[in-house]
Amino acid sequence: MNYKNLDRLFNPKSIAMIGASATPVKWGFIVLLNILKEGFKGTVYPVNPKLKTILGLPCYPSLETIPGPVDLAIITTPAPTVSALIDECGRKGVSGVVVITSGFSETGPEGTRMEQEIVAKARGYGIHLVGPNTMGIFSADSNLHALMPPVVPLHGGISMFSQSGNVGVQMLYWGNNKGIGFNKLVSSGNEGDLKSEDYLSYFAEDKDTKVILAYLEGLEPHSKLYQVARQVCRKKPVLIFKGGRTETGGKAAASHSGALAVSSRVLRAAFRQAGIIELENSQGLIDCAKAFSAAPIPRGNRVGILTRGGGWGVITADSCEENGLVVPRLSDIIIERMNKILPPYWSHGNPVDMAAVITSEPYLECMEILAEWDEVDSVIALGGSIQSAMDFQNNVEGPKELKETLAFAREFAQEYTAQDDVVLEETRRLVEKTGKPIIVVTLGDYDNHKSDLMDHRVVSYPTPERAVRALKRMVEYRRFLDSPA
Amino acid sequence: MNYKNLDRLFNPKSIAMIGASATPVKWGFIVLLNILKEGFKGTVYPVNPKLKTILGLPCYPSLETIPGPVDLAIITTPAPTVSALIDECGRKGVSGVVVITSGFSETGPEGTRMEQEIVAKARGYGIHLVGPNTMGIFSADSNLHALMPPVVPLHGGISMFSQSGNVGVQMLYWGNNKGIGFNKLVSSGNEGDLKSEDYLSYFAEDKDTKVILAYLEGLEPHSKLYQVARQVCRKKPVLIFKGGRTETGGKAAASHSGALAVSSRVLRAAFRQAGIIELENSQGLIDCAKAFSAAPIPRGNRVGILTRGGGWGVITADSCEENGLVVPRLSDIIIERMNKILPPYWSHGNPVDMAAVITSEPYLECMEILAEWDEVDSVIALGGSIQSAMDFQNNVEGPKELKETLAFAREFAQEYTAQDDVVLEETRRLVEKTGKPIIVVTLGDYDNHKSDLMDHRVVSYPTPERAVRALKRMVEYRRFLDSPA
Repeated sequence: MNYKNLDRLFNPKSIAMIGASATPVKWGFIVLLNILKEGFKGTVYPVNPKLKTILGLPCYPSLETIPGPVDLAIITTPAPTVSALIDECGRKGVSGVVVITSGFSETGPEGTRMEQEIVAKARGYGIHLVGPNTMGIFSADSNLHALMPPVVPLHGGISMFSQSGNVGVQMLYWGNNKGIGFNKLVSSGNEGDLKSEDYLSYFAEDKDTKVILAYLEGLEPHSKLYQVARQVCRKKPVLIFKGGRTETGGKAAASHSGALAVSSRVLRAAFRQAGIIELENSQGLIDCAKAFSAAPIPRGNRVGILTRGGGWGVITADSCEENGLVVPRLSDIIIERMNKILPPYWSHGNPVDMAAVITSEPYLECMEILAEWDEVDSVIALGGSIQSAMDFQNNVEGPKELKETLAFAREFAQEYTAQDDVVLEETRRLVEKTGKPIIVVTLGDYDNHKSDLMDHRVVSYPTPERAVRALKRMVEYRRFLDSPA
Repeated sequence: MNYKNLDRLFNPKSIAMIGASATPVKWGFIVLLNILKEGFKGTVYPVNPKLKTILGLPCYPSLETIPGPVDLAIITTPAPTVSALIDECGRKGVSGVVVITSGFSETGPEGTRMEQEIVAKARGYGIHLVGPNTMGIFSADSNLHALMPPVVPLHGGISMFSQSGNVGVQMLYWGNNKGIGFNKLVSSGNEGDLKSEDYLSYFAEDKDTKVILAYLEGLEPHSKLYQVARQVCRKKPVLIFKGGRTETGGKAAASHSGALAVSSRVLRAAFRQAGIIELENSQGLIDCAKAFSAAPIPRGNRVGILTRGGGWGVITADSCEENGLVVPRLSDIIIERMNKILPPYWSHGNPVDMAAVITSEPYLECMEILAEWDEVDSVIALGGSIQSAMDFQNNVEGPKELKETLAFAREFAQEYTAQDDVVLEETRRLVEKTGKPIIVVTLGDYDNHKSDLMDHRVVSYPTPERAVRALKRMVEYRRFLDSPA
């Protein structure tokens, strides 16, 4: 394995921004602004021969005039200027270059020639090159936001490489919205020099990366990615979403990133063999990013289902069977224990349908019994968070007694909603105690569940089917881990 | 077709609440409170021999002591008391009864006997009976909220019958959250008297119902639902989500609603033959409820894709092909027209990848060209709403110039975000002008898109795959409408 250490690329001590601009619509201005506004931990040197200062920083006419060493150069100047700049980088001893500039191999033969030239030069100097035609890189540890869009990601244990800048950046936005934190992102662009497998093997070695995410469009027929993945997946989960799976999508990908079409079936088999978790859609990618980064991998495929309402239990059970998860029959001992907690008309089975018991104490007692039961490997807890389930906000005309009662009901609803926090805290405690994932399905108002994850470190989804699909992927990963290497 | 007119049931002029209670934990109190707080348009008569007033209303010792006529009786008293109450309802000339009380056929032989007795009596009196074991009914026109949970739905054109009260009510909550309005909901409970097919044929005739939603768990082997549906689906879309599709789910359903298992494959074929749109999961049900109630049905399966970023175009194209939608090649004329608007490096194909053009004017011009092109039947517009895509909120230490620039960028971002409203308004205008659905994919922060629908009547989703799946269902429905009856 031809491992490339990209530490200095992702965590440089100093950056030269070549093409730094004072014109707000230029990328050389926007990327610089994004770097500065997030407080990059090292030194930033804007480079532009026409300016004395940019955004209050001294501006340098060229790389060689910069007084100290430069670890990383970011280039936004037009394609024909890049080749000479790589030479300058070589002379300056730069170790990494991010070529944001487009107009290379994605545009035709002349672009391809230029790309080959800059890549050959970079390799000659021992420079690692990201792109060209990239949206940039992000790294949490050094507060490096060398990205075209002004996204400010949450920090966490996920690192991603993406053959589409937009898709990669969108994952950061969704992560923000759902409480999911990232450690690194690289938009790999045309992958002239550094390729997906290089990022993959670097993330595998990187101690701050716990889960690896990827969006791919094209893979060269004999890509090293598979053989790299086979070793990486034993250490960390690798979640991949592949664009260009169909003829229609493949054609679009060819015009977009020049990606070569490889038969979807062949690809899928190779992914599976390598232990890669391939997601079927973009929602699945972010949903699984959440589960893999914040919940333990279950030991097997047996699920205990806890529900406050019968219909949702049925829907969850269906989804489990359709996704290869098993919903085991409750043992007599478990039934006896539940009998002591629940009214006589509970389901007496798995799903454990509490049948209209809505207080939190019996809910948590049942959750504990299920989670500790040695015949299940995970628990799906429906209605664990019941925010906004009680709407007493309406103001109506009516007798004084009605108004007073509504005021009381509103207070009660507020107190009741506060139970959510207790349930989530206890859920987290049970996950830690049992080592089993407990996936909460809120069925509540919001699709985002940011606070469940950020405030309580509990993985939750708005529907049981999304919980089941995430769990299915974790079970697949467990199976891979348990298979002979 | 044995059509039952349920107008007086759903829009009664007067209600008797039998079992009305002053004890806050009793359903006879909670349901009454829900009815009163939403301002039911008719008269409400609480019935309880032990009380003089409830919530400021005079309370009656029995049905017969109520001075005026009673259209609808709602019963929450224990199961053994219901039979005698049905006799009272018969003598009073009540036309509908909602039996919220549980403890009937879902509990065993004695419950089944009691259920048969109350149903036989009700039918003898010509009373329509909802339930027993129901969570109640909602009707927008009369502001009737005779439901156990205090949900306050948005009003709109969707009516739903549900064999699970929890699932039905959840759709109202999600509707609230996503801007989707309902006209009627009935939790059909054990369906002792009124069955799913009765609600279906009533909703078919009901002028205020535009789209029919259902959650089903059990269907009798020779249910009339199929033959009813065959006629209804020609008039209005019927969207069904079926629980108990698998052995595991079927077992859970049997313990929950006593539903009989019918082979899933047989059922699915029968649904399709009848023209019913069967959804595969709960998210699909609410997503399609939105599309069918707020967008025109496309004339065919040809989709124009407009995107601001290549990767998302690829993902959308893949999803289209995987779901039987066609992404036609752009004609030379269309390409020429786009050339006049877009920079030279746009994709020159469908998906129309604008390639980093982020202003709204060219976006809207391209959308209009695509929507008016007679070789597409619908448009998926990615990134039409870009709320919060620009995060300039961070405050950093740094030079004065940086701080001033950030203040300016924040202002710019706000102005820029305001473009969303212009894009959505124009989108709606184009839908009206062309009669084609234009489905927006926001890719933005929020999963809910309430304001897109409520303020602009534009159907939007957070991911392209969800847009494609909703569109696929509409295309299926078009195919059914175009097939010989």
